[in-house]
Amino acid sequence: MSTDLLITHASQLLTIPAHDHGPQRGDRLGDLAIIADGALAVSDGAIVALGPTTDLAAQYPAARIIDAGGRVVMPGFVDPHTHVVFAGDRANEFERRIAGATYMELMNAGGGIMSTVRATRAASVEELVAQTRARLDRMLAHGTTTAEVKTGYGLETAAELKMLDAITRLAAEHPIDLVPTFLGAHAIPAEYKGREDEYTALVANEMLPALASQPPTASRPLPFVDVFCEDGAFTLDQTRRILEKAQALGFALKIHVDEFEPLGGTRLGVELGAISVDHVVTTPAEEIELLGRSDTIAVSLPGTPFGLAQHAYTPARAILAAGGALALATDINPGTTWNESLQLIVALACRYLQLTQAQALAAATINAAYAIGRGEAIGSLEVGKQADVLIMDVSDYRAIGYRYGTNLVQTVIKHGKMIETGFLPVR
Amino acid sequence: MSTDLLITHASQLLTIPAHDHGPQRGDRLGDLAIIADGALAVSDGAIVALGPTTDLAAQYPAARIIDAGGRVVMPGFVDPHTHVVFAGDRANEFERRIAGATYMELMNAGGGIMSTVRATRAASVEELVAQTRARLDRMLAHGTTTAEVKTGYGLETAAELKMLDAITRLAAEHPIDLVPTFLGAHAIPAEYKGREDEYTALVANEMLPALASQPPTASRPLPFVDVFCEDGAFTLDQTRRILEKAQALGFALKIHVDEFEPLGGTRLGVELGAISVDHVVTTPAEEIELLGRSDTIAVSLPGTPFGLAQHAYTPARAILAAGGALALATDINPGTTWNESLQLIVALACRYLQLTQAQALAAATINAAYAIGRGEAIGSLEVGKQADVLIMDVSDYRAIGYRYGTNLVQTVIKHGKMIETGFLPVR
Repeated sequence: MSTDLLITHASQLLTIPAHDHGPQRGDRLGDLAIIADGALAVSDGAIVALGPTTDLAAQYPAARIIDAGGRVVMPGFVDPHTHVVFAGDRANEFERRIAGATYMELMNAGGGIMSTVRATRAASVEELVAQTRARLDRMLAHGTTTAEVKTGYGLETAAELKMLDAITRLAAEHPIDLVPTFLGAHAIPAEYKGREDEYTALVANEMLPALASQPPTASRPLPFVDVFCEDGAFTLDQTRRILEKAQALGFALKIHVDEFEPLGGTRLGVELGAISVDHVVTTPAEEIELLGRSDTIAVSLPGTPFGLAQHAYTPARAILAAGGALALATDINPGTTWNESLQLIVALACRYLQLTQAQALAAATINAAYAIGRGEAIGSLEVGKQADVLIMDVSDYRAIGYRYGTNLVQTVIKHGKMIETGFLPVR
Repeated sequence: MSTDLLITHASQLLTIPAHDHGPQRGDRLGDLAIIADGALAVSDGAIVALGPTTDLAAQYPAARIIDAGGRVVMPGFVDPHTHVVFAGDRANEFERRIAGATYMELMNAGGGIMSTVRATRAASVEELVAQTRARLDRMLAHGTTTAEVKTGYGLETAAELKMLDAITRLAAEHPIDLVPTFLGAHAIPAEYKGREDEYTALVANEMLPALASQPPTASRPLPFVDVFCEDGAFTLDQTRRILEKAQALGFALKIHVDEFEPLGGTRLGVELGAISVDHVVTTPAEEIELLGRSDTIAVSLPGTPFGLAQHAYTPARAILAAGGALALATDINPGTTWNESLQLIVALACRYLQLTQAQALAAATINAAYAIGRGEAIGSLEVGKQADVLIMDVSDYRAIGYRYGTNLVQTVIKHGKMIETGFLPVR
């Protein structure tokens, strides 16, 4: 059978398979299902065969052969939680925070999330696209081939729809596949201070119906609906009001839970059948048990405590001990963690979540894909899946996470095509 | 005056000057002395003029002009503490450590520093050069233009001299300027267990005289002499014996101090006039005061506690409050922190040492240069200095450290020449 592309001579071909058409759960997390001296054949952008190089080279003559040269070959990273669309930056605020300014001092000085909201409201969709494109280029160069992207810096109907428009345009032009999430309930906008229930009603009764009125298309899929359930953002009751309305309108759900204060968001997520609960730092033991028995995936964002120099991280081992499914994401955003690299997140997860390299890699690929509803199409190297493939410039996968701070990607292959980003090392 | 190269249109040209021909000390750390819309003229590899673009463009017609396009221009990073020459890796050990293996279990399983010593002893000088070259390439791509490099994985006379030979060969071929340090007293080799004083005598009475018998040349300068003063390595008394002998032979001194246990190494370093004391984590307040009043520079290595997922970092603010001079380094090594990027170290220093971005940048440039005796030649953009210059792909220096996990370098200029490493982004 003739094919478009054959990748040969992977020292380790990490297939990182789905388990029973789902994520790798509990103590089975970290199943890389390695093929030694592996090869992979691609036809029409999809994986058609995997096996030892000696077998495939004979069976699958290809128009193009990429010799991995004894390097690790693995699925493209999937980033299931990002705020990568935004305008402006908060480098000034970061400097003031180091110097000792408190969160409230920064807010009162016009900083915090509302400074990003002002910049994003003021930006044209073209400006949003241009500023975000540079960040997506960095993500791609570091191996991210699919990413979730949230709205949430508009906080008014038109600006939220503008952000969705920017995501649609970027999805059309950029090699990274983008999966949208509507996060109109990211924060209470300044103009609604003291009228939080009114803003909650605006999200539920104006924004969500406006979204639902646009029938989804291939280029503009139905977004997930997400709420930031936290002290100072949305109460558990407000979160429930928004999500129940979203569910009634046919949206799949996500929730930001337990980043700082445990408000019961994890329990709510499990109850509503959310596809994921994200952050999951201060989650009580009882809710971890519920989560472990559910189909809801815990998306851990270790870049956020790292970015804030805090020491509380997701209790990953407890979640796994409860049988749960864990994924990793960057949470890239201008306030707490401006980092495009899932490789650094893997390094943080090895150190602060005590995941082995194998567990962290599965959490950032197959489990991340399931956390955004794409597990049947991407996230692993299995026959029939989209050929989103990385060649890493290491001979042993255990170098990923052990080594940190630089980009170990040598080649990115997206949909069976080699990417030339200009950011990639050429040697 | 005609010149070789003119760099124009830096949004911010960070000169980061020496203070009184020395490092930036105490509360004066972080003096970037920024030139807005800055330019820099180079002749014969040296900086001949700095100023606003409008002034320099008229006065210094150049054979080549690089338009920085509104980006930040700054001195090349200087990495004053590395163990970048080694053979093999310890990715397997890292995996076992995550899974819960103790340091002693790893040592007893043949891991720890002795596994690197075995690999380094077994490697030819050509193999050492080849393995190290790839790491130096990454360092250069991340903006390091000068680096200190230690021996210390030989731990026997011939193997230590082989490491120095590898450093000399790499210095000759690689764009990064390398400054050697002899660290025969890095660990007690396994074969000297229980005979620590004998190994101490071997270093002092055989290795040091062997080094001193080779007259320094331009391509093989006199190394610094360093000792790892720590529980399980060298006692304070053993450290003193080696360093007093080294001083008598004419070597300048460095000491690894207070990484885990405070043994009095900082006081000894100040007493002996060491150029630097390195790690400086558990240093008692009284010794911080001594250090602050001395000319000895504190070299902080935040990658090491990060690499080990520990939470004790250099008390940088106390050192500055005492009037001390602080520098930053990667400490790149195969056991605790395999990271080539000083940009990530700056990000760690902002978060865990509570340095502002400006303080961290000065610590990783001019102060780092003084920590390896090169402060008069490099580390800042000042007339007469070597033209080691970075163009960073940001318009505000405060993005460095705030953003993390990716490489913000756009262009590296070494000795007035643009470097093509293959690792650098082309856009």
